[in-house]
Amino acid sequence: MKVNVHVMLKNGVLDPQGKAIGHALHGMGFAEVGDVRQGKVIELEIADGTDKKRIAEMCEKLLANTVIEDYRIETAS
Amino acid sequence: MKVNVHVMLKNGVLDPQGKAIGHALHGMGFAEVGDVRQGKVIELEIADGTDKKRIAEMCEKLLANTVIEDYRIETAS
Repeated sequence: MKVNVHVMLKNGVLDPQGKAIGHALHGMGFAEVGDVRQGKVIELEIADGTDKKRIAEMCEKLLANTVIEDYRIETAS
Repeated sequence: MKVNVHVMLKNGVLDPQGKAIGHALHGMGFAEVGDVRQGKVIELEIADGTDKKRIAEMCEKLLANTVIEDYRIETAS
């Protein structure tokens, strides 16, 4: 099955990359853009029936730095 | 409104970062993991009612490198 893990900086943690994107978009004339944040998606191909706990373990141990990042697990099919 | 843009390397484009993650997960005993790919998510706060075309324009011009990357626009609320 396919699992998408979204890793975003926590609210309140400065996101310079997002700020840079927002700034660039404004400079290009996209004035309708407000706040921008950038994160990661990790697409995992995982054996069917893998427990969600197991995926959370991967996130905690490797995929996300839980001090500054939040993760969200999205199971596709 | 909130818009999520997913930017992933196209199929067939080598993804060393994804490979490294997969390798690390295997080394940590997560044998159930197969292929891994890594991409970006960009969360944009955009003025309500902004045309989707306009967002696609941002992707084409700045957010994605369409030579090697695909993007997907996801409108939240």
